Amino acid sequence: MTINIMDIAKRRGFFWPSFEIYGSVGGFYTYGPLGSLLKLRIEKLIRDHYITKEHCLNIEAPILTPEDPWIASGHVESFTDMNMECTKCGEPHRADHLLEEKLKIDAEGMSLNKILAKIRENKIKCTKCGGELGEPYDYNMMFKTSIGPGKNKITGCLRPETAQTTYMPFRRLFELGRKKLPMGVIQIGRSYRNEISPRQGLIRLREFSQAEAQFFMDPKADTRHPRFGRVKNMKVRVLTKGTQAKNGKETEMTIGGIVAKKHTTEWISYLLATSLELFEKMGIDPKRLRLRQHKDDERSFYSSDTWDVEFMSDTFGKIELVGVAARTDYDLGRHQEFSKQKMEVNIDGNIFIPHVVEVAYGIDRPVYAAMESSAKKDGDRVYFSFPPEASPYQIAVFPLVKKDGLPEKAMKVYDMLNDAGFYVLYDQGFIGKLYYRQDEAGTPFCVTVDYETASDKSVTLRNRDDQMQVRVKTDALPDVLKKIMTGKLQFRKAGKVLKK
Amino acid sequence: MTINIMDIAKRRGFFWPSFEIYGSVGGFYTYGPLGSLLKLRIEKLIRDHYITKEHCLNIEAPILTPEDPWIASGHVESFTDMNMECTKCGEPHRADHLLEEKLKIDAEGMSLNKILAKIRENKIKCTKCGGELGEPYDYNMMFKTSIGPGKNKITGCLRPETAQTTYMPFRRLFELGRKKLPMGVIQIGRSYRNEISPRQGLIRLREFSQAEAQFFMDPKADTRHPRFGRVKNMKVRVLTKGTQAKNGKETEMTIGGIVAKKHTTEWISYLLATSLELFEKMGIDPKRLRLRQHKDDERSFYSSDTWDVEFMSDTFGKIELVGVAARTDYDLGRHQEFSKQKMEVNIDGNIFIPHVVEVAYGIDRPVYAAMESSAKKDGDRVYFSFPPEASPYQIAVFPLVKKDGLPEKAMKVYDMLNDAGFYVLYDQGFIGKLYYRQDEAGTPFCVTVDYETASDKSVTLRNRDDQMQVRVKTDALPDVLKKIMTGKLQFRKAGKVLKK
Repeated sequence: MTINIMDIAKRRGFFWPSFEIYGSVGGFYTYGPLGSLLKLRIEKLIRDHYITKEHCLNIEAPILTPEDPWIASGHVESFTDMNMECTKCGEPHRADHLLEEKLKIDAEGMSLNKILAKIRENKIKCTKCGGELGEPYDYNMMFKTSIGPGKNKITGCLRPETAQTTYMPFRRLFELGRKKLPMGVIQIGRSYRNEISPRQGLIRLREFSQAEAQFFMDPKADTRHPRFGRVKNMKVRVLTKGTQAKNGKETEMTIGGIVAKKHTTEWISYLLATSLELFEKMGIDPKRLRLRQHKDDERSFYSSDTWDVEFMSDTFGKIELVGVAARTDYDLGRHQEFSKQKMEVNIDGNIFIPHVVEVAYGIDRPVYAAMESSAKKDGDRVYFSFPPEASPYQIAVFPLVKKDGLPEKAMKVYDMLNDAGFYVLYDQGFIGKLYYRQDEAGTPFCVTVDYETASDKSVTLRNRDDQMQVRVKTDALPDVLKKIMTGKLQFRKAGKVLKK
Repeated sequence: MTINIMDIAKRRGFFWPSFEIYGSVGGFYTYGPLGSLLKLRIEKLIRDHYITKEHCLNIEAPILTPEDPWIASGHVESFTDMNMECTKCGEPHRADHLLEEKLKIDAEGMSLNKILAKIRENKIKCTKCGGELGEPYDYNMMFKTSIGPGKNKITGCLRPETAQTTYMPFRRLFELGRKKLPMGVIQIGRSYRNEISPRQGLIRLREFSQAEAQFFMDPKADTRHPRFGRVKNMKVRVLTKGTQAKNGKETEMTIGGIVAKKHTTEWISYLLATSLELFEKMGIDPKRLRLRQHKDDERSFYSSDTWDVEFMSDTFGKIELVGVAARTDYDLGRHQEFSKQKMEVNIDGNIFIPHVVEVAYGIDRPVYAAMESSAKKDGDRVYFSFPPEASPYQIAVFPLVKKDGLPEKAMKVYDMLNDAGFYVLYDQGFIGKLYYRQDEAGTPFCVTVDYETASDKSVTLRNRDDQMQVRVKTDALPDVLKKIMTGKLQFRKAGKVLKK
């Protein structure tokens, strides 16, 4: 595999560094025509799943907030990374990453003093100019601004996560959900992290998109997950905290087995399993995914158990795509304490602050992982094997030539497929070039209208992955395509095979 | 009509003031379970239209940007409103709005001195405490922050509009569009305006959503719009700048007539007409909409022609839902000047900076206008008559009772309708209450699974607007509902009528 994803992403308009004409700023990317659609499909897959299958309420809160919720959540105090600036050129360095890069050690959670000692002892210098590095200090990654004019202004923060903006209206949501637990709430939107020195494309952004679902529950009553049976036989690769302590390797287990062996709860393993199903729908290679439990010294102090799904990237190594965490009653408890508003609920006379199990997806990382997983090389041909549910376009429609009324006929097919609810693209030009272009866009099916279309009332349907072509009645196209996409019809049986 | 939209919006979870537990901050609203879905439907209607019918490229750029593009665009210098603070209590007042409120005059564009004179002459005081108002001053409405740490930090801005974030990558987009004009680009996302004193709910927000489509063109070649014929006979209510100068009233004209009488171009009138079509699809009453051309002294200096679509709100009076403006080559020209990057294109040897015609929708205002237009009272019954394409849910599925296996059967119908691509809600409880709740949510159809469902393989389908009920075969539901929603089947003909 020698496909450079960043190259193809720029050339084909998936994404590129933002503000290029003014000199790019690290940690900001713009999604182009193909990438923005891929991202929308991925967001829709996640949102639809949590709304329709997990019965979550959907909400959309502001990104810009006052400071209060972030004082309560602890972000104002401790949403920090360690920064070391070069004493000569001023270049900032994220201290733990610098150590990891230079010494190949795990520096997460190391103290300021220990990091400084390691830097000095190993004579690590500025990566830009070779200058001496200053002392490391805790650098807060919240973006702050002011809301309102003059003397009335208050401090504003760009949210570092969607979660707190879902917790704040908990009382309203609980009323709207008719005071029942468990209650799930999903929110998809932008979040911000003023990274010290982001240099990894979509993997480390200062402005990124998240999909977070919070499940509020009674910790005594809701120990079983109602849909656990559906996933319990799913096989997964797992690295538990116990195995990591023993420096062991990941093992294959079933979702049911993880719970049976008391590594975690039904809720956490169910949410991990469904995230794996969603990643597969996005076109992310399941063989490159594993579940990793946070070690005791790595987990946030208020979390009783946290797991990540990790993707093994060719370019970036292990990257976390989603985190699932038991957050106890910490968040609602803190908001109750700081806002003086009651977050307790009363269910059948039992009064308590609900506990939260949270599933927190990045969106940009799955977009990248789907691209890396789906990039295929077949001789000279490069294509993305996105599943039809995730691909930017599902179908491209072309006229064989740009004359003799074929474009008008092709446009009618385009309109028909659009009206049937598919994501369709119309294009025209040299047919070989059009196919090439759609391969690079990951479009699973191409439809060509030719001179015979008028007489045989048929079109040529081309399959991206094996380039097979079949002749299909024009009127039957929506139905045939729907059946192929849902696995109810094999492509080769969709019509007369024209070309292998 | 005595339905209080804000009341029902809060009670039923459409939207509410954000951060309530910490005391709300003016200009921020949270969309709840129903409102966030309504907003998503409205965004999808707009996005799908511009992508599939106007062949726009879709992009998604960061909200947080460096300052440079806003220096070029002029926002850093002149994105201002006039603020007057109370000398006693410090309360800020937007000076022109204060004059309009107190004196019922049009204060837009009035100078600082003239405003101050009017305030003193009419002895206008602080609306909060009655104190003396200070001198008005130009207050910049950009939200600013810092990006990056330490000495390396640069000024960051929350974008006041999506437009400039579309102009910046123009060269890339032009390449991706294969160097053809006209080229359309659509972007939907949040924008920010640090309003002085916002107090009008969704109508005046500090954080709001926009959908802006920019059409780049050759001003010499692209004088005709290719799809103008489709809309030219549409009748619309119009207030031209000429009529306004003569203090005249709006007149009814056709879209073709507006162009024939040289009030504006085919492009502008086409974009206005299609926005009216979209507003109708959202459930906004067409009789409450009109086109209003900006007067010469009201228009931005670089725009050669600007029009708004105005909605007549019961609560807020005239509100602008969308603006369509000929922006000439101003934006690209300024970015060329400030970034020193060429924005000129070369089409058949003709070298020029493309001109832009822009259509800029707010999203929050159409959400509100759709709710106000659709709110209906029928005796004691209150319902939203949202069209199925815009309603938060299209179908609600209930079991008649919560026992005897009916919930499981209803859940199967729910799954079937979900898989068919509808937006479906499952609920259970007292059937009358469930209907009542779905009326208030604007759900056009309810399906009830009852004791007869097992034997007659049918369900009861209920129409929101007239409460008619018909009996429909369960298997036929997806097809029947699709036909009813697309106007191909009358509700009363969908099955045996049970109840008028």
